[in-house]
Amino acid sequence: MQLDKVYEYIDFNSQKFVDDLARLVRQPSVSARKEGLQACAEVVEEMMKEVGISTRVIPEEEGNPVVYGEFRSESSEKTLLFYDHYDVQPPDPLEEWICGAFSGEVRGGKIYGRGAADNKGNIVSRLKAIEAFLKTEGSVPVNIKFVIEGEEEIGSPHLAPVIRANKDLFSADAAIWEFGGTDREGRPCIYLGLKGVLSVEMRAKAASRDVHSANAPLIPNPAWRLVWALNSLKDTEDRILINGFYDRVEPPSAEEARRLEEIPLEEEEEKKALGLRSFLHDVSGPEAVRALLHQPTCTINGFLSGYTGTGSKTVLPSKAMAKLDFRLVPHQMPDEIFNKLVNHLKRHGFGAIEVIKHGSTEPTKTPLSSSFVQTVVRTAERVYEKKVVVYPTSAGSGPMHLFRNWLGYPVVSVGCAHAESREHAPNENITIDGFVKGTKFMAALIHDFSIS
Amino acid sequence: MQLDKVYEYIDFNSQKFVDDLARLVRQPSVSARKEGLQACAEVVEEMMKEVGISTRVIPEEEGNPVVYGEFRSESSEKTLLFYDHYDVQPPDPLEEWICGAFSGEVRGGKIYGRGAADNKGNIVSRLKAIEAFLKTEGSVPVNIKFVIEGEEEIGSPHLAPVIRANKDLFSADAAIWEFGGTDREGRPCIYLGLKGVLSVEMRAKAASRDVHSANAPLIPNPAWRLVWALNSLKDTEDRILINGFYDRVEPPSAEEARRLEEIPLEEEEEKKALGLRSFLHDVSGPEAVRALLHQPTCTINGFLSGYTGTGSKTVLPSKAMAKLDFRLVPHQMPDEIFNKLVNHLKRHGFGAIEVIKHGSTEPTKTPLSSSFVQTVVRTAERVYEKKVVVYPTSAGSGPMHLFRNWLGYPVVSVGCAHAESREHAPNENITIDGFVKGTKFMAALIHDFSIS
Repeated sequence: MQLDKVYEYIDFNSQKFVDDLARLVRQPSVSARKEGLQACAEVVEEMMKEVGISTRVIPEEEGNPVVYGEFRSESSEKTLLFYDHYDVQPPDPLEEWICGAFSGEVRGGKIYGRGAADNKGNIVSRLKAIEAFLKTEGSVPVNIKFVIEGEEEIGSPHLAPVIRANKDLFSADAAIWEFGGTDREGRPCIYLGLKGVLSVEMRAKAASRDVHSANAPLIPNPAWRLVWALNSLKDTEDRILINGFYDRVEPPSAEEARRLEEIPLEEEEEKKALGLRSFLHDVSGPEAVRALLHQPTCTINGFLSGYTGTGSKTVLPSKAMAKLDFRLVPHQMPDEIFNKLVNHLKRHGFGAIEVIKHGSTEPTKTPLSSSFVQTVVRTAERVYEKKVVVYPTSAGSGPMHLFRNWLGYPVVSVGCAHAESREHAPNENITIDGFVKGTKFMAALIHDFSIS
Repeated sequence: MQLDKVYEYIDFNSQKFVDDLARLVRQPSVSARKEGLQACAEVVEEMMKEVGISTRVIPEEEGNPVVYGEFRSESSEKTLLFYDHYDVQPPDPLEEWICGAFSGEVRGGKIYGRGAADNKGNIVSRLKAIEAFLKTEGSVPVNIKFVIEGEEEIGSPHLAPVIRANKDLFSADAAIWEFGGTDREGRPCIYLGLKGVLSVEMRAKAASRDVHSANAPLIPNPAWRLVWALNSLKDTEDRILINGFYDRVEPPSAEEARRLEEIPLEEEEEKKALGLRSFLHDVSGPEAVRALLHQPTCTINGFLSGYTGTGSKTVLPSKAMAKLDFRLVPHQMPDEIFNKLVNHLKRHGFGAIEVIKHGSTEPTKTPLSSSFVQTVVRTAERVYEKKVVVYPTSAGSGPMHLFRNWLGYPVVSVGCAHAESREHAPNENITIDGFVKGTKFMAALIHDFSIS
């Protein structure tokens, strides 16, 4: 089978594809605000049906529906699964958009709108790659599965039980993850892993109500207690002091370390945009990339206690709280880290501080040596005619471990964004060229995977 | 001169005095909310004039007017100054009051209302003592001055320049301060000093905006920085670690230490009311009283950074702040402590944290050996027929140092509250008996001071 006809179909129908993407962008689906999720799931299902994929919506009791799609090939036993999400980030600040945040407008060769890059553009490009096969060849050379959830932007809190209850439904030989694109030099970037995350809240309490601060010699202050407890977790060099925290951390392999050298980091732009003179501990270059991808972290997301208005108030607060997240790398397990945190606090005299677990995902990674990774790299280099930038893992988090760790197949993340796609920010966009090329990449990958 | 007639006048007119107190309570004067201050100053001035005291309202450009009053005696060169305040705390929570918070209602022998104890009861009792002399003797045996300000409950931010600009106006031989009363056993309590206070805000900043916490390996986190900086100020044993913080602190004298043994502390009631099993570091008895009165403190009043809503948010905040107050004892000077704090932060690598001074007052104390203290004690024991409880100093703060330190005369705090007066809380009240007795005490003190 040649891909010429498939590519031709994609080129010939590209305006239609752009219209379909605009249609999907115009349906807001902000999971953080529970806005338009059901309606958006229906648009996705409709589009799948139009392509010729059999669909099934898995309703979630508490969460947003998961749209499942399946196409059974006559010619292959192999199955490729696509993981995507139809929910998007809130579009604020609205005043910074050059067009409506949910308009899907085309300007200067770019399609604008919240979700255009993250992740609706990829949903449509993947569906259209299937359509191109079906319209030109009458079939797809491998079995295809789609898992398109509606809660990725809020941490996929309800996906795990869905996967657990439907292991057969989600079985596959490999999976393509939701994000990726090209860098400033047009090189395709592919990602082989994600960090895990553990989100906790620490709550300290003392007296049953706030008292006048004149009582400070006698009444315990939970704000101080919390400060001391937090201080015990990390030193000023950002070394995490929880006993055994780093036990399971593996340094990057020689091959991974080599790949880090090739990963672009727009240091000066980033620092300028944030008004910083330097990164933490003055790291730069491959050292900064290595920290970003391979270093586990402990971050205070927020804290609150007592009086925080203007001026002063002589109050001794009765409670204090802090929210933290731990970013984890293979093979740190969130539950184990949570227990270590609780034990650490007990051992350091902070056992009275309540620790609440808000959510977690495991770190995960597909090895560079995986044959699926090799296939994706080769296909990308052929389609984009550029050297591929391989990220051995990435700084972000997501539910990839459900597929990679629980179901056990390789997962690689690719997509059709570009260096200025502005995901999560105003004026999110993808280029029409990148969208069309990304669709061809998906088609080529399906083909190459079928013969690999 | 005998005091019989003066006492008779007070007894005979006590219902009128109660009515006058109710009239003053009914005029709300909440300085924290800028509510009714000017109107209340006018009621105070009117009452002074009714008594026969010449008055003068010192307007403050930014603050609330200070009501000044003066009566020149024909028979004495001595001057006794009364410091009071007509402003009150906010009355919340309103639903816990058994009557209107500004009603001045009499129930079961008590006058209820915000300000009844703190400090309108004392204003009226002092004015009525003067009235009793004038109506019975035609004069007062010493020169009298009144300073009644309207910002005590918000830290008297504008009184210092008024005193500085009018030193002659406020000159005196001794002063009676605004608060005091009887304990559960009916013993009069008198107070010889106040702690100083220094209120500051610490602000840490890093990136110009919040970023995703996946960037934690590269982007500095001001919340951590602030936690580390705060931790450097005080250890878990509540020892303040600022270099030289305790340099000028004097331990209580032998006589002061002896007095501490006599001071009642309702430990069990206090702990029960606050749901605490024990006080800080398990102190109790005279040790607790000593800590409360003589120990300088560093208190976190509040802190805020990043996300503090429900659940979790993977954010790395761009700023963090904390509010603190330092309670100071003789001879710690607020400006010196502020400089030591700033230097401490610099020396410990936290020089980038901005420190803002919100307000301060100096600690102050009149020695037990002062002859004025002896006079007040003797008079109180005669009027109340009980042993006096002398507090060598107290846990609270206020502008007493302006009179004691700047103008240089002895200051003693007394008043007509009782153990259940509930100052700053719902159902604030004084008893009619305590009010009448307190008025007699003021008259007796004026008399005794004139012959001392």
